[in-house]
Amino acid sequence: MAHPRIIVYRSGHERIGEILKEMNCPGEIITARTSEEFEELVPSAEIVFGWKIPPHLFRHARQLRWIQSMGAGVDDLVSNPDLPPTVMITRIVDQFGSSIAEFVFAELLAHVRRLDRLRQQQRDHRWEPLAVGTLRNQRIGIAGLGSIGQELVRKARAFDMVVYGLSREPKPEMVDKAFSSDQWILFVQSLDYLVITLPVTEKTRGVVGQQVLQAMKPDALIINVGRGEVINQQALVDALTTGQIAGAVLDVFETEPLPSDNILWDLPGVRISPHIAGPSIDEYVAHYFVNNVERYINQEPLNGWVDRQRGY
Amino acid sequence: MAHPRIIVYRSGHERIGEILKEMNCPGEIITARTSEEFEELVPSAEIVFGWKIPPHLFRHARQLRWIQSMGAGVDDLVSNPDLPPTVMITRIVDQFGSSIAEFVFAELLAHVRRLDRLRQQQRDHRWEPLAVGTLRNQRIGIAGLGSIGQELVRKARAFDMVVYGLSREPKPEMVDKAFSSDQWILFVQSLDYLVITLPVTEKTRGVVGQQVLQAMKPDALIINVGRGEVINQQALVDALTTGQIAGAVLDVFETEPLPSDNILWDLPGVRISPHIAGPSIDEYVAHYFVNNVERYINQEPLNGWVDRQRGY
Repeated sequence: MAHPRIIVYRSGHERIGEILKEMNCPGEIITARTSEEFEELVPSAEIVFGWKIPPHLFRHARQLRWIQSMGAGVDDLVSNPDLPPTVMITRIVDQFGSSIAEFVFAELLAHVRRLDRLRQQQRDHRWEPLAVGTLRNQRIGIAGLGSIGQELVRKARAFDMVVYGLSREPKPEMVDKAFSSDQWILFVQSLDYLVITLPVTEKTRGVVGQQVLQAMKPDALIINVGRGEVINQQALVDALTTGQIAGAVLDVFETEPLPSDNILWDLPGVRISPHIAGPSIDEYVAHYFVNNVERYINQEPLNGWVDRQRGY
Repeated sequence: MAHPRIIVYRSGHERIGEILKEMNCPGEIITARTSEEFEELVPSAEIVFGWKIPPHLFRHARQLRWIQSMGAGVDDLVSNPDLPPTVMITRIVDQFGSSIAEFVFAELLAHVRRLDRLRQQQRDHRWEPLAVGTLRNQRIGIAGLGSIGQELVRKARAFDMVVYGLSREPKPEMVDKAFSSDQWILFVQSLDYLVITLPVTEKTRGVVGQQVLQAMKPDALIINVGRGEVINQQALVDALTTGQIAGAVLDVFETEPLPSDNILWDLPGVRISPHIAGPSIDEYVAHYFVNNVERYINQEPLNGWVDRQRGY
């Protein structure tokens, strides 16, 4: 227990193993450079520190006690039938709140202040005053009131927005109007902006589908910084094409990378980004893990512990 | 006094006179449609409600007691030798704080989150993760701590920025570090972002010149939402061209509209907008004025009263 064997694997981030050693991470740290190397090493691993590892590679992880995800999403791990229930899963929480909230407000403000149009006018050397909107008194609905949602609420307050929130248990102390997860239609119908910060679970998969989209205002904007699968992508394309909603800011998708022939790239009112709202900074992730390894060795509760039944 | 004659003049905004009547504004309201009409009408005016009226048109304003500006800037009125010192000037204050602060944060967030690059990638259907920055712990310096500066401070707090402020009298209770108007060099030298909200006065004209620009960090960004004349525009172009600073977001200029052959339109790192950070909404402006007319008739102090010595 005092010197657990740790296998580190994230394609393209081989430096993380070195960072851990520089930080004097306890344990024996071994970096896998390829999925083959990972599969070869995993039978001897007590701890795995990784990201988006193909589920079948865990088949022979007989000594595995704990997997620390390098990010916030753990749906691939939670749904992996090859992982015995005794394997603990932890994810990185609290890291992403402020970064994702910055991204959301970057896009919200760019939208109301019409920055894309301003850039076009600049390219044309055109001085043409244009009417702009404001976030003030606009209604923002935040689906998911975890660490990301909390940061969004805080920033929305600074812009004097009216804040609605939806969560498993309503949180009326946090928002101006609180909804539970069976009140989606009521929640969305008067929103100017719907921000989705939800993980994908059995309950959230496809929850933003035709019905929810139809209930929204035609000038509403959807922003998804949670997981792509929470939105039914085909229903979203339909809603955008028929003008049921005005636009969408999408950082996550059902399939990533978004295929280059996907219709979303060119749909008016749609803003695409390559899953960058919450950056995973190697050093931060390593620091978080080292702290957790120390807790593990001291048999203290781990940060970011995932309830595998609940799914996050 | 109970029924003052009010001349309303703003080219392109003839509707304001109608709005005033709908709001039951006291007094006799007459709209001038052209500068000639204004010059003809002004000798009988007790009150003028206008915007950017050529100074020489006030030469025959013999009965004039009060000019209400339709905006926040009154440098043209304060510096007008044809206006007797007995004419009161008022400007619109408090209206612009939240709108200008939204504009500033739209541009700050677009900058750190690299929205322009994201848009280019979307046009190319290119899925390419990119490193982004954060406003968190970045140092923002706000020059001018009036109603606009206050809103900027509030929003900067919500983004966990370190806030420096410069004002005539230092305001240490408002910011993390307070400077007076003779401490420009000290103020700017460690800033990541310098936001100028200052009016143009004898003391601020050209104050951001070669010396101040040289003291700044090479990765710093300047944002001007005050008045163009506060920056020495040629010195700014030099600083941008030689890499003394990284960029500038400019909503105001020495000459407006910015001539279409001005070098600033195409300079890398420069973002141009046509003086739209603080929109002047006709209804809001009219409402503000009606309230002031009632105060005028009741001989109460006017909102937005300008100290003509101080210049704002």
